[in-house]
Parts: sequence; C-alpha cells; structure tokens
Amino acid sequence: MRTPHGEIPTPVFMPVGTQATVKTVSPHELEAMGARIILSNTYHLYLRPGHELVKRAGGLHIFMAWNGGVLTDSGGFQVFSLGPLRRITEEGVEFRSHIDGSKHMFTPERVMEIEMALGADIAMCFDECAPYPSTWEYAKASAELTARWAERCLKAHKSPTQALFGIVQGSTYADLRQASARDIASLGFPGFGIGGLSVGEPKDVMYEMLDVTVPALPENKPRYLMGVGSPDALLEGVARGIDMFDCVLPTRIARNGTVFTRTGRIIVRDAAFAEDMRPLDPGCDCYACTYFTRAYIRHLIKSGEVLGIRLTSLHNLRFLIRMMEEMRESILSGSFEEYRKETQHFWYNN
Amino acid sequence: MRTPHGEIPTPVFMPVGTQATVKTVSPHELEAMGARIILSNTYHLYLRPGHELVKRAGGLHIFMAWNGGVLTDSGGFQVFSLGPLRRITEEGVEFRSHIDGSKHMFTPERVMEIEMALGADIAMCFDECAPYPSTWEYAKASAELTARWAERCLKAHKSPTQALFGIVQGSTYADLRQASARDIASLGFPGFGIGGLSVGEPKDVMYEMLDVTVPALPENKPRYLMGVGSPDALLEGVARGIDMFDCVLPTRIARNGTVFTRTGRIIVRDAAFAEDMRPLDPGCDCYACTYFTRAYIRHLIKSGEVLGIRLTSLHNLRFLIRMMEEMRESILSGSFEEYRKETQHFWYNN
Repeated sequence: MRTPHGEIPTPVFMPVGTQATVKTVSPHELEAMGARIILSNTYHLYLRPGHELVKRAGGLHIFMAWNGGVLTDSGGFQVFSLGPLRRITEEGVEFRSHIDGSKHMFTPERVMEIEMALGADIAMCFDECAPYPSTWEYAKASAELTARWAERCLKAHKSPTQALFGIVQGSTYADLRQASARDIASLGFPGFGIGGLSVGEPKDVMYEMLDVTVPALPENKPRYLMGVGSPDALLEGVARGIDMFDCVLPTRIARNGTVFTRTGRIIVRDAAFAEDMRPLDPGCDCYACTYFTRAYIRHLIKSGEVLGIRLTSLHNLRFLIRMMEEMRESILSGSFEEYRKETQHFWYNN
Repeated sequence: MRTPHGEIPTPVFMPVGTQATVKTVSPHELEAMGARIILSNTYHLYLRPGHELVKRAGGLHIFMAWNGGVLTDSGGFQVFSLGPLRRITEEGVEFRSHIDGSKHMFTPERVMEIEMALGADIAMCFDECAPYPSTWEYAKASAELTARWAERCLKAHKSPTQALFGIVQGSTYADLRQASARDIASLGFPGFGIGGLSVGEPKDVMYEMLDVTVPALPENKPRYLMGVGSPDALLEGVARGIDMFDCVLPTRIARNGTVFTRTGRIIVRDAAFAEDMRPLDPGCDCYACTYFTRAYIRHLIKSGEVLGIRLTSLHNLRFLIRMMEEMRESILSGSFEEYRKETQHFWYNN
C-alpha cells in the first residue's frame, strides 16, 4: 500500500494506539521494531483530547510524533459496545461518554468530519457492528444500514490525501456477508474492512465467513480484518487473503506479564521464571530479548515497575510484526503454504 | 572519578533506580540523556529479587543492562525509616520487611556481604541515620555508633573492584558534624557520603552543616550529599564543594505530571496547558522536548498513558543532568560564581 507516510508492505499488523499512543511504547520504539502503520480510535480521541485540538496540533502524526502510517477506526465498534448508553437510528447513533456521561451524536457525516480532522492516512466508514449472536433478520438490517451509511460517508468524505475504506458486515451469515461485500465493493472504496468478526464467535465460524467474504472483494485492494488478532488467526487470515490486522491483544497481555514465544505463551511473572537467565524468547531480535532476562523482567513486573510492561509490550509487538515479515517473505518466494505447515504449531500455541 | 564502568565527571547527579530500574526509564535512555552513574537500593534489592539472584545474574550492571556506574546505598536510611518495624542495637538493626512482614537483621558485616553481591562500583557503609530533630545526646551517640560500624564495614568489605565510601552523620549540630567528619575521614575511605541531611530540616540548616562538614573532609576525594535534591540545593551544594548527589525528586514529581523548566516548575497536567504546543521546556534538548508538546503530554497524563510519565521523567532527569554539566563547565572555566549568580533564579524557582 502507498500512503502519504510511506509504502506499507502487506500483510501488515497494526499496533493499536487508542489514545494517540501505543500503550507504554514510544513512536521511535515502534519505528525501531518495524511497525509501519498503527491504528488509533476516533471515539476516544473525539472525547479526549478532542479532534479539533488534534487538528490544531497538525493532525495525529504530528501530535504523537509518529511518521509512519495511521488508520483511524470510525468509532462504530466502541459506540455499539456502550450498550445501554447508546441509541441507534437511521440518522446515526446517540450515545453517552464513558468518561463523563455527556450526550453525543455520531452520524456518518459527523464521523467523516472527525476523521478528516484527525488526519490519518486511512479513515474507516461509520458502520453498525452487530453483536454476536445476532438473528439473520437483525444482521440483514444492520448490514443494509451499514451500506446506506457507507454511501453517506463517501459523499461526506473530502480529502485529497486520506483514503476511506468501506466495511463489510453481515454477522455470521454467509449469504449476508456475500451481499454486504458486493454492496460495499460496488461503491468503489480503495480498501475494505471486514468488521463484526472476532466479537465472540468461534474461530471456525470466523474463518468460514472469511472464506465467503474475501472472494467477493476486489483482488487488487487491501482487505483488513478488524480487531484480529491472535497469532493463529493472523496465520489463518493471511492464508485467506487478508492484508491488514489490528488487535490490542499483544499489548494487553503484556501488561499482565504474558508474552508470546516460539514455544508458546508464557506468563513471565510466574515463579517458574524467577531464576531464568534466558531472554523472553530466545532467538527474538526485539529490544527486550537483546538486553534483558526473564528473571529481570519478572522482577520488574513483580515490583510494579513500568519498565517491565514496556519490555513485554515491545516484545509482543515485535513478535507479531516479525511473524508478518516472515509470512510476507514466504509469499514473495512462493513458499507460504510450506511456511504455514512448518510453523503452524508455533502460532497455535500462542 | 574513575570506576570500573568508566570515568565519571563531577559534580554529578545520580538518578535513583531503587528496584534496579530508574522508574519508567530504560538503561539506554539513561545513557542517551548523559547519565553516568545511578543509585540503587540495598534494602529493596535484598528483599526483592534478593542479592543472591542479582549475583547469579552477574551483578547489578548485567542484571539491569546498565553499563555506566552504579552506587548502592547501605539500606541504613530505609531501615531507619521503618519506624516501629525496627530495633537498633550495637550489633545492628533488626527489622521487618515492608513487603511481607518477615524478620531480618542488618549488621555492618551483613550489609557488606549484600553490597558485594550486588556488585556496584561504589558501596556505602552501613550507618545510623538519626531522625530530624534529634537531641544533641542522641545525635552524638548515633554518630559514634556510625563510626564504629564504619570500622566494621571496612574490615568486612573485601572487593578488588568495588569502592567503599564512609558516611558522616551528626544531625544538625556543627560540633558533631565536624567530629564525625574527622572520625570517618581518619579511616581512609576513598570517598565520603554526608548523610542525615535533607530529612526535614530547613535548607539553611543543611547549608550550615555543609559549611562545617566539607572542610573537614579530604579535598581530593569525592563528597556525596545523600538524598539531595532539588535544583536550588544542587547549586548550593556544588558551591560548597559537593561532588555527588542523588534524589527521587525528578522522577517522583514527573509521575504527578510536574516538570522543571527554566522559568520554574509547571504542572503540565493542568488545564492551562491543554492547547500549549510548546515543548515542556523550550530550549531543552531531551527526548520529550525534541518531539512532543505540552498539549500531547498533558493528554497522555490525563488519559493515564504510561508514555506521559515516561516523557516527564526523561525531561526532569535530563534537566538536572544538564544543570550539572553546566556547573562543571563553569567550574572548569573558572566562572562558577558568575554562573551561580546568573542562573540562581532558575534553580530557586524549581
């Protein structure tokens, strides 16, 4: 993908920087670990510090001193997750802030205005993310609403530099997914999110939905599986033609002292690692593994020291980014299926 | 000063790394900001992760991946701060852990064993730090006990690479300070801590004590004012012949969102800075000031994001280290008194 902030090789994992920062990590550390694009959250930045402030600061890139790519979600997922705090109509969604309870309204037009102010390289359409499970009827109405909103987004989005991606919905129904993919694809977006997955459904169901959705999307445009994910799901997603992923998993588990390794996840805060002088994951090239032992990182986490969760976060992010690099290399050399077979057990153990 | 981990230009400020990490900061960030030596805490490391583990890891430098100098305090200050949890005898101090209430005994011999295991470049003698205020009688007995313990430390300390510094006590009594300085100096240590100050007494009293203590110590050996401090006290300390300082102040106030600036301390989390697109301290060369605005750092701190307190910590540490660099330059060029007069208001406003 070409963006105003450089070429982004795919498949790519996007670290999540909800509040204009990837938790515990500096932008220069992201650059050093090979991150090329991050995700940030429209809903959160709209509420705090406010999109107008970010705009006055020169946009998200300058505000957070990050020179790589940025994608902003549309706030749809966050707003729908508010449950009783929100009300959906044809016009948009009325909701109350999780911070101070104040009342707000998101419409497709309003969200485009906010995303343009934030100034990411890629904006996402405002969509309705149906919960899991949903009835076929609810999922159909929801996907159709999402398609009408997509048209409104397209009309309201005016930026010479920012790309706008459409979002496919349809819950766990193959026919609805295919119809949604066709509807959204027909609008001619330069890229497509696949939303409403990884929301509680079994992984097999998610893979089935990818199997029917991806072929209905243009081959030459990026496909983004939203909110995924775990190492096994990255592998399976790439195998099914997904180009982009984002997930809080690596940084969230890192803050609990859990790290990915080539031999499976470990909880480094466990007593078992008190005397372990090996790096988190022998063979890993991240900052944490280059300089520090499990024993030291365990000590930091047990002592409540910030450096501990910085190191586990750096490691987990680098682990996934390196995984994507490896998959890309295997695709380029025509050996992805071998790579997948050979390494499957690593990713399924994480 | 020459140490096994390089030459350390003085006067020098030592960031505090209580639990084998300077809070929120990585060792490579310390290096980048010009830190040459840090302080770590014997009491804390003895309890967690244990000095034997640190020794097995190869010593503190290797354990925490820090290639500069390290000084360990003796745990005296921490142990005496435990109040009802400790009992002092001629032999040593019995105390209970603040973590799990377990019973422990620190004697001069035991503390030397622990400090040798930790493997810092500079170890401090086990001393009694009299509280403020203390009666003349208590302070006299305490300084004399400290002198007897210093002899025992000297006898027990056997390391070809680690220097052992004596500690002067005597509370706020000029005659006791002078006597203690003479007693401790007569033992021939390669450097001297001045302890028992910055424990609640007025700053003028501290300066008076320095005025009578420093001249009683050898001119050609480093003098270390323990637990100090604030920018004004660094300036006044250097003016009185102090070579080394340590203090948690810069990192502690940073975690509350307070930063030093050339025009006085500011609380960057205040609403006044919500739209402020200047760096924390215009003219500062630290990482935070090079890349980020007050508005962004305020946003991070208001949002509870770790990067916020990382940036304020980096800034405050660099501010003090740069101050020491400036003082050193002015001493070398023979213009310290001018520097002191010209910049006094900066340091007194912080």
